[in-house]
Amino acid sequence: MAASLAILGHRASMISALPANAPGRACAGELRRHGVDTSSLSFADGRLGLYYLTPGAMQRAAEVVYDRAGSAFAITPPGHYDWPRLLQGARWLHLSGINLALGEPTARAALDAVHAARAAGVRISFDCNHRATLWGVRAAQAPRLLREVLAAADLVFGNERDIALALGLEVATGDAQARFAAAAGLAFATLPHLNWLATTTRQTTDADDQQLGGLLATREGQRATRLHRLTGIVDRIGSGDAFAAGLLHGLLREWDEQRALDFATAAACLKHSVPGDVNMLGEADMLAWLSQDGFDVRR
Amino acid sequence: MAASLAILGHRASMISALPANAPGRACAGELRRHGVDTSSLSFADGRLGLYYLTPGAMQRAAEVVYDRAGSAFAITPPGHYDWPRLLQGARWLHLSGINLALGEPTARAALDAVHAARAAGVRISFDCNHRATLWGVRAAQAPRLLREVLAAADLVFGNERDIALALGLEVATGDAQARFAAAAGLAFATLPHLNWLATTTRQTTDADDQQLGGLLATREGQRATRLHRLTGIVDRIGSGDAFAAGLLHGLLREWDEQRALDFATAAACLKHSVPGDVNMLGEADMLAWLSQDGFDVRR
Amino acid sequence: MAASLAILGHRASMISALPANAPGRACAGELRRHGVDTSSLSFADGRLGLYYLTPGAMQRAAEVVYDRAGSAFAITPPGHYDWPRLLQGARWLHLSGINLALGEPTARAALDAVHAARAAGVRISFDCNHRATLWGVRAAQAPRLLREVLAAADLVFGNERDIALALGLEVATGDAQARFAAAAGLAFATLPHLNWLATTTRQTTDADDQQLGGLLATREGQRATRLHRLTGIVDRIGSGDAFAAGLLHGLLREWDEQRALDFATAAACLKHSVPGDVNMLGEADMLAWLSQDGFDVRR
Amino acid sequence: MAASLAILGHRASMISALPANAPGRACAGELRRHGVDTSSLSFADGRLGLYYLTPGAMQRAAEVVYDRAGSAFAITPPGHYDWPRLLQGARWLHLSGINLALGEPTARAALDAVHAARAAGVRISFDCNHRATLWGVRAAQAPRLLREVLAAADLVFGNERDIALALGLEVATGDAQARFAAAAGLAFATLPHLNWLATTTRQTTDADDQQLGGLLATREGQRATRLHRLTGIVDRIGSGDAFAAGLLHGLLREWDEQRALDFATAAACLKHSVPGDVNMLGEADMLAWLSQDGFDVRR
Amino acid sequence: MAASLAILGHRASMISALPANAPGRACAGELRRHGVDTSSLSFADGRLGLYYLTPGAMQRAAEVVYDRAGSAFAITPPGHYDWPRLLQGARWLHLSGINLALGEPTARAALDAVHAARAAGVRISFDCNHRATLWGVRAAQAPRLLREVLAAADLVFGNERDIALALGLEVATGDAQARFAAAAGLAFATLPHLNWLATTTRQTTDADDQQLGGLLATREGQRATRLHRLTGIVDRIGSGDAFAAGLLHGLLREWDEQRALDFATAAACLKHSVPGDVNMLGEADMLAWLSQDGFDVRR
Amino acid sequence: MAASLAILGHRASMISALPANAPGRACAGELRRHGVDTSSLSFADGRLGLYYLTPGAMQRAAEVVYDRAGSAFAITPPGHYDWPRLLQGARWLHLSGINLALGEPTARAALDAVHAARAAGVRISFDCNHRATLWGVRAAQAPRLLREVLAAADLVFGNERDIALALGLEVATGDAQARFAAAAGLAFATLPHLNWLATTTRQTTDADDQQLGGLLATREGQRATRLHRLTGIVDRIGSGDAFAAGLLHGLLREWDEQRALDFATAAACLKHSVPGDVNMLGEADMLAWLSQDGFDVRR
Repeated sequence: MAASLAILGHRASMISALPANAPGRACAGELRRHGVDTSSLSFADGRLGLYYLTPGAMQRAAEVVYDRAGSAFAITPPGHYDWPRLLQGARWLHLSGINLALGEPTARAALDAVHAARAAGVRISFDCNHRATLWGVRAAQAPRLLREVLAAADLVFGNERDIALALGLEVATGDAQARFAAAAGLAFATLPHLNWLATTTRQTTDADDQQLGGLLATREGQRATRLHRLTGIVDRIGSGDAFAAGLLHGLLREWDEQRALDFATAAACLKHSVPGDVNMLGEADMLAWLSQDGFDVRR
Repeated sequence: MAASLAILGHRASMISALPANAPGRACAGELRRHGVDTSSLSFADGRLGLYYLTPGAMQRAAEVVYDRAGSAFAITPPGHYDWPRLLQGARWLHLSGINLALGEPTARAALDAVHAARAAGVRISFDCNHRATLWGVRAAQAPRLLREVLAAADLVFGNERDIALALGLEVATGDAQARFAAAAGLAFATLPHLNWLATTTRQTTDADDQQLGGLLATREGQRATRLHRLTGIVDRIGSGDAFAAGLLHGLLREWDEQRALDFATAAACLKHSVPGDVNMLGEADMLAWLSQDGFDVRR
Repeated sequence: MAASLAILGHRASMISALPANAPGRACAGELRRHGVDTSSLSFADGRLGLYYLTPGAMQRAAEVVYDRAGSAFAITPPGHYDWPRLLQGARWLHLSGINLALGEPTARAALDAVHAARAAGVRISFDCNHRATLWGVRAAQAPRLLREVLAAADLVFGNERDIALALGLEVATGDAQARFAAAAGLAFATLPHLNWLATTTRQTTDADDQQLGGLLATREGQRATRLHRLTGIVDRIGSGDAFAAGLLHGLLREWDEQRALDFATAAACLKHSVPGDVNMLGEADMLAWLSQDGFDVRR
Repeated sequence: MAASLAILGHRASMISALPANAPGRACAGELRRHGVDTSSLSFADGRLGLYYLTPGAMQRAAEVVYDRAGSAFAITPPGHYDWPRLLQGARWLHLSGINLALGEPTARAALDAVHAARAAGVRISFDCNHRATLWGVRAAQAPRLLREVLAAADLVFGNERDIALALGLEVATGDAQARFAAAAGLAFATLPHLNWLATTTRQTTDADDQQLGGLLATREGQRATRLHRLTGIVDRIGSGDAFAAGLLHGLLREWDEQRALDFATAAACLKHSVPGDVNMLGEADMLAWLSQDGFDVRR
Repeated sequence: MAASLAILGHRASMISALPANAPGRACAGELRRHGVDTSSLSFADGRLGLYYLTPGAMQRAAEVVYDRAGSAFAITPPGHYDWPRLLQGARWLHLSGINLALGEPTARAALDAVHAARAAGVRISFDCNHRATLWGVRAAQAPRLLREVLAAADLVFGNERDIALALGLEVATGDAQARFAAAAGLAFATLPHLNWLATTTRQTTDADDQQLGGLLATREGQRATRLHRLTGIVDRIGSGDAFAAGLLHGLLREWDEQRALDFATAAACLKHSVPGDVNMLGEADMLAWLSQDGFDVRR
Repeated sequence: MAASLAILGHRASMISALPANAPGRACAGELRRHGVDTSSLSFADGRLGLYYLTPGAMQRAAEVVYDRAGSAFAITPPGHYDWPRLLQGARWLHLSGINLALGEPTARAALDAVHAARAAGVRISFDCNHRATLWGVRAAQAPRLLREVLAAADLVFGNERDIALALGLEVATGDAQARFAAAAGLAFATLPHLNWLATTTRQTTDADDQQLGGLLATREGQRATRLHRLTGIVDRIGSGDAFAAGLLHGLLREWDEQRALDFATAAACLKHSVPGDVNMLGEADMLAWLSQDGFDVRR
């Protein structure tokens, strides 16, 4: 998310803890390479969080084995982060459900960050990113923690299942747009600061042939993009972050909301063609794709 | 086939001859890695049999250049194998048409094995695996040799062309299921021990877009799976062995025959997504695919 | 183009200038590897012309960054080439629009070659290969230079936009075949030596799913192939050269024109399945593909 | 150590815990590939222990960053291992100081194993393998734990610093052989079951140019090999295990002790020429090296 | 040089011009990855300067084929750089003889920078880096340009040949230290701002076995390090920059001059063990090497 | 040998048989890449001869596992080669002891070639290249076959063991030069056409540290080069062919014999620094190395 925003031309700073060893430093270097400001990273005790990826192909889904237990990020105590200082000069704070799921220290740090941001007038975006295997035995705390963050957020990336989980409700029935509209109605009724609820919808026939669209709800109504067919997927890891970065880019550029949503969905789609977990493409790439200016070799 | 059965949880032992040099030992190590028992391999004179593979792509078919002449397996004399001892404790013996095609020594050894297995009450499966280029000048002997093995087999993997070749008949006309049903009728009438005749059917539009299904005939009737569309094929080498291992797995687990056939066909399909000639996937992978539990990243 | 002709069994000689250093010699070696006669290459001052390729995937187009400024080929003065000697024994001279676009020296050398070829009774083929970024500030000279070459050519690879550019006309409207027929009519009326005008037509839904066909106009009329659907494209760079080499092969073999066009289009399609910029396939591969003898593994 | 013994022709079984996921299974497969019996491995909770290696070169030392916290091996409770059953049929039990250093559970399991082995008449070898960074805050417990294992061991791999640490003594002064002899004297006086104390000695001028020798003390006296110069080192990780496996091999083959020590030292030296942490070489390779039969290509 | 200083903990900013395309941006990303501030890079017309490297081995020297003609850096007009602004806040400006050799525009820009630095009280270091093939036909201008830069420099990296070339003198005779001392005497007599003249000395027996030392002259006298033997060289490209960065690091840390020279020479030596052209090692690595704390694996 | 001669600027043609399949054609392409004329290769029945190489390192020797049984070259009948036609225009015919060792057909073809060459006035060079594992059961025929070829050769590459084997004599005693001189005396007395007997001598301390020199005997006397120390060897396969090509190059250039021998030995030494089995270096590289013009990076 931070790398994609930096590539799109924004000042993006990553606040996290990495191990004070060679792999940790390499990780910071990789962020810098994409243009992310790493001056707010701290180097601390603990290991480097990893995951193992078996790429999917055809109708075989990709598999991720998380290996984050004991990571520097997971075990750094929440008091380590001096949020008022870290948020100085920021316009937005972005967090993920993974902050809440990884363990008590990261959840606590996320809540501290959220409250400090509201106090400082920094807007908040939150990507629900629900990962059951990361919550593990702490699953029962998920609704309470999610609710506390959502109550402070201006922009939430999540679908009807995320909203239902946070608010303790049943998931609505109906088609994707109807379910999302129902969830959005409840969310806007409950969450005082919420201005935007956004999600991608995915219709899948096999791991290599999927249709992707974007939905964006505001207090005024709901917008959708057309569905884009994705064949020959190269790597779908990071498409959610590409979407989030794309939407935030549009809002920061003050585009109208349909344009911002179309752009975010283009970013999510194009990320499927890029190996690795970062959307390496720039604004012009997404706009060219949206204007359908052809798929021939550019030379 | 042995590797896939080992991965599916069975004790699988490979009986063959490898050269007594570093490449031969590496080959045994690779089998062990997958869990195959290599204690019945012998290290003998001769070279390591190879093949060169040019992977196919789009509408260009893959090409295999066999390089098996003079291999330790091909030249080891049939008397080398002490079948009663080698088959001790076995429930099934599996052979391939390649045993018959490679040359007189391997064909003779295969027939010895088959007779020893029947004598010891070991069930026999046989994959016809017809390869014209391997038979070469020995093509005229194919029907007699095939017939001798088929006459002893409980389970045969082959289609109507294989049956027609073995029994000296014309291939029936009609659609794939009708042709297979006709061949199965003749096979069950002629082959005293045959309980199952199974095959995959492939409808191909290009090397990268194929439809695959499974057919299984018994003395009671014939079953078919639905056709599965295969796009974005990674590597189809070994899909026949994946099918055979999957069906044998179902029979050994005493599943009903439709379930065994569906499972075998799932294994054959999923193998197309796995690089290399071994289906690295486990039972849970095939069952998940059959239950269509989604193609999203698993994490 | 030269490599593909050599692979198809023709004597093909490359006339160009390469830098007199290790990369330049490696380049000549690569041509020789494919069977191209490199005795007419000269090693001269200047650098090796390069391009950077970002392969496309899915709906993201490939991107080429040219890096040809200052190359030995670009800066070698036209007087360096002794065309009467270089063309001795040749039946055809093939040139590309890139010769005209790269700069004054290569354009001048191309015109000298064309006039020398006509004087020596060597037939001329020309691939328009329009690349706007290579013409750069010299774009205004394109029509005049193109016209001078086209006026001498027997065989031209180009579409209605190329013809319109050369002759200073509007592009006709209508579907692909109609537009091409209109352009061909004007071309045959204007260009005294022109016997064949050929092009591929591409209908694209995304960078990974395209339909390709071939069109060939003569003074007698126009022929077309059916459209071939291309999914799972591996590398489309070089498909135009594969088409050109395929058509010239058919003409040199004195096949009837429909067969030559079908063959050329097969070559262009199959090139999309071959990594690198050379169509590594032989005549038998293209004929097998045309006769649709199946996409199964060949073994 | 287990892999090297298996390659040398022994039945070697690994008793450990691996995570029940794809990386854990791959790890077991790799052991099987080398011929190690993996039937005593258990698949348990926890992650896969890792280390990061920056290979050394010239005068820059290699660096290892351990990443073993939370590994399945580290956190499996000692009661998990049913030692009498696991040791059935074994002649030797081999352990490492890393078992003691990693944490309380593995240390407790190691002590249980040692006592069960003594009770069952299984001989015990122990490689001190001191790693300060792994002991961390538990360093104070090292002497007590080491002493408990050493008291039961028949064969110990360690130098004077290891013995001094375990027995709470000062390290003797003098040259390498004298220091080792002093330590051996104390060890034999204190440790009732000890028959052999062995170590390698390393004289280093740079990371790429070292001299290596072996020392072996028994109750009868002390033996040494000549020093072997090591230039052009490929990978020194695993040379200690190669030495241990080599010595145990010699003892199991009932060679005289000088021959066993020479062989072990040859194994340690040759491991420096093999990439990876396993000595892939067989008995014949070590013997050929000892008999100096030339370094020419063997063909 | 900039990357090494950043790794050593300094704020280092690169002032240059890169092409405004994907390779140019990748280049900037690589600099950022090492921690170099890229905000003073400009993206301009021209290509990316390259070189081709054939690594040396044994007694075969490495070969570099420069490919810098027409690069964005080479062709950007000197007026493009607003030196007073670019130098704001800087303590040192570092330039290389390559700036002078590449062509008139870069030479002019270098002189402008030097004068602006002196005017702003920014200290100047200059690495003579003589490359005859880059000067080409401009070789006659080398003495004048070098003299103009040297006249402004506080710190010069160069040997007696560089000084002789700049001052139009004969190279002194004698051993390496005597020749350097003679050159230093002349340099300090001629160059008003010069405080330090430093160089490495290399004694070579083959490309893979060299001895390296450092020499540093000041107005007070001359210092030398011991010679370090380099065997098993991995990559010597960048060792000069590693030396320069190491010396500047010592001066910025206000170490005594012998310590700074030892450190710089350690950096130059250790760079030979690091692939690529950047010395990836930190201060602790060089200090550990100098204190000879052993070449064993660190774990 | 042919590739090295082509790189040195000679017309070199390879006469052999390759399989008529993709690997065979790739092999011909690789020869062409180096500039070898492949028009005398024939594509025939049989497989492609291979070998497996385990590269040596440190004191572990490289190992070659030959896999040449059944190769097209080995089984092509001698009558296949029309020697008078194949030798037209040639000045030298070069053969290897491998031609004699591989089997009856290649030995017969080699003798036919030798006799045809003598009849046509083509000079003959022969590299004894003794490989015991290739002779296998045919070892008893080696002396007779060698003698028949040697009797016709102008230039022989071989040492005292080769000469003793061919002439049925004991190997002389003494140091390397004395043993070679004795063998040369006998050879010149026995072999009527012999003008030059040449060999490399190798003194080895480990696989990575060897000393290499050259010896050349003529009817007038014997010459030797100094011994060159080889450390950090990259790949020694092909150094014999590099030597042979270097000497033939010197003779063809009509250099004096010491210079030719020095050059040949330089080629053999430098080949150790080049990966692969072809000496990729040109005349200038060998001459520069002989003139010791430094091992610094060339740029």
